[in-house]
Amino acid sequence: MGIRITGTGSYIPSIIEKNEDFYNHEFLNADGSTINSSNEVIVEKFEAITGIQERRYLKDNLLNSDLAFFASKKAIADANIDKETIDYIIVAHNYGDVKHNNEQSDTVPSIASRVKHLLKIENPKCVGYDLLFGCPGWIEGVIQAKAFIASGIAKRCLVIGTETLSRVIDKHDRDSMIYSDGAGAVIVEETNDDSGIIAHETATYALDEAHFIFFGETNHPEVTDKRRYIKMFGRKIYEFAITNVPKALKSCLDKSGISIKDVKKILIHQANEKMDEAIVKRFYKLHDMQMPEGIMPMTITTLGNSSVATVPTLYDMILKGELDTQEINKGDIIIFASVGAGMNINAIVYKH
Amino acid sequence: MGIRITGTGSYIPSIIEKNEDFYNHEFLNADGSTINSSNEVIVEKFEAITGIQERRYLKDNLLNSDLAFFASKKAIADANIDKETIDYIIVAHNYGDVKHNNEQSDTVPSIASRVKHLLKIENPKCVGYDLLFGCPGWIEGVIQAKAFIASGIAKRCLVIGTETLSRVIDKHDRDSMIYSDGAGAVIVEETNDDSGIIAHETATYALDEAHFIFFGETNHPEVTDKRRYIKMFGRKIYEFAITNVPKALKSCLDKSGISIKDVKKILIHQANEKMDEAIVKRFYKLHDMQMPEGIMPMTITTLGNSSVATVPTLYDMILKGELDTQEINKGDIIIFASVGAGMNINAIVYKH
Repeated sequence: MGIRITGTGSYIPSIIEKNEDFYNHEFLNADGSTINSSNEVIVEKFEAITGIQERRYLKDNLLNSDLAFFASKKAIADANIDKETIDYIIVAHNYGDVKHNNEQSDTVPSIASRVKHLLKIENPKCVGYDLLFGCPGWIEGVIQAKAFIASGIAKRCLVIGTETLSRVIDKHDRDSMIYSDGAGAVIVEETNDDSGIIAHETATYALDEAHFIFFGETNHPEVTDKRRYIKMFGRKIYEFAITNVPKALKSCLDKSGISIKDVKKILIHQANEKMDEAIVKRFYKLHDMQMPEGIMPMTITTLGNSSVATVPTLYDMILKGELDTQEINKGDIIIFASVGAGMNINAIVYKH
Repeated sequence: MGIRITGTGSYIPSIIEKNEDFYNHEFLNADGSTINSSNEVIVEKFEAITGIQERRYLKDNLLNSDLAFFASKKAIADANIDKETIDYIIVAHNYGDVKHNNEQSDTVPSIASRVKHLLKIENPKCVGYDLLFGCPGWIEGVIQAKAFIASGIAKRCLVIGTETLSRVIDKHDRDSMIYSDGAGAVIVEETNDDSGIIAHETATYALDEAHFIFFGETNHPEVTDKRRYIKMFGRKIYEFAITNVPKALKSCLDKSGISIKDVKKILIHQANEKMDEAIVKRFYKLHDMQMPEGIMPMTITTLGNSSVATVPTLYDMILKGELDTQEINKGDIIIFASVGAGMNINAIVYKH
């Protein structure tokens, strides 16, 4: 018996926010002090490190749950299933529904209930819940779907990663340029062949790392409201990620019994191109190998960091032939991997 | 093999808010119109229906994650386990950490990461995540722990229900008197005997019911800010609950193979005493029986509705001998049940 993804879908919001669109922002350091560079230089340095040239924002009239709904409809159609046969709707996100020009996160009812409502699913046995796990939430949702299926509680799960980070960014913070919006969804179910999830690995580092990504006030010292935004200690995260993610990937691969030479693609969460390269290079170095060309498909240049949505969107785009020079074929071994707030790390070794 | 609760703990906040403390509130109808009764009469009617005389609020300097931490410490001590052997920290809540006098929900990092940080657990293999599922979140967390254990992913889980509803209530809404704060925690693990979870049942009704409990603006028409609060359509919830919860309880009991005559206690989520009585009476009526005396231990009179915290707190209090005339003994069959935002319903038939 295998547990595999039988359908994928994603929703990429329509508003393209280019790096040049940040030229008129007033960026400040975290302590409120002025940055001694022009915005053109700040943006250029940002692009050199992260690889991001543009990102996507949702329209003012849309919500996080709408994006989740759009991606889910596509995944259900792609899997060619009756929506009434879904046992679980698992929604990974981190900030709930945040309306345009509003600072409150709306989390009741759950996004899963909202998606189920929008999908017009009647079957009450279809259980919807939300999972908060930082950027690794979607991969963790797939692992939870595996647990439900393996334990006989479910046969078919809809797992969604959806996020609208444009609604929680501080425009006076350079890091705001990283964040993007989007949603990816998959159907996970039992199959008769040996494809699907071979091994998984999850870790939560919270002793020193719990607040590396946090909710904090604006960098602008003259803004007196207490509104908080997504904030991060970028340098600490970078050091943490390049130290711990390669180890987690190796541990997961070791569990799977698969040789690293058989790995065809690594679909890793994309927050920073240089960081991702450093992680994957170190992973190969742990196996005394060079990182192979084209092993790590990237969408960060045009899609930025859409948190939980990045990995399922990337997977969907490759399968639908929307990424030039990238393909995944039947039987290919791939690794899904992510790191983010918590700090959480996870990985799945998967046979497509 | 059984999967059972081996330790319990709860935290009951210290501030007692009595019904009389609401006498000076300006209560209004949902449409902003005046209520044609004195506050004394409003409060008296409220108490007659819900059974609530007082509720608990956390101190201004505390957060939801602090309450979760306090309850968890007790559960870990009660189970007499090494905290480093916990595989999962599952935290059910609905609004994250909301500071005193602040309208924002802080959900990043997850409450689970915060609790792990406060517990000073080092082991990175201890995975912490948050579960949003309305008031039934804690029972659902226990069901998820069961899935992880049954599928071989985990051996020992800490499952917490924690909520600070006092931070999200509209003081101009009569329904605000229902809500309370608190946290309950348990250790769930594999055992060698036949005790523990016998059957479970979960349902999500979202087609018409998704927004029965929602985030809405104050009832006061002259308040111009857009701040939103927990809101509900009480009558609709009542009708929904008395129709669907008895059926879910029966379905769960049928699955378990246990006779209703062997059920010793029903530990049900407490939002409204009259509603709970109606639910349990109907459940017995489905079996052509009268509801037995003392079958449904209640804490609502003094603890109100603390959402996800109510059921684990109730269970902990009975086991610790803190509820007069109520006890649970080894081998007793009990049912855990809850209903809430989503709309979600769940139940567990359990051998103590």
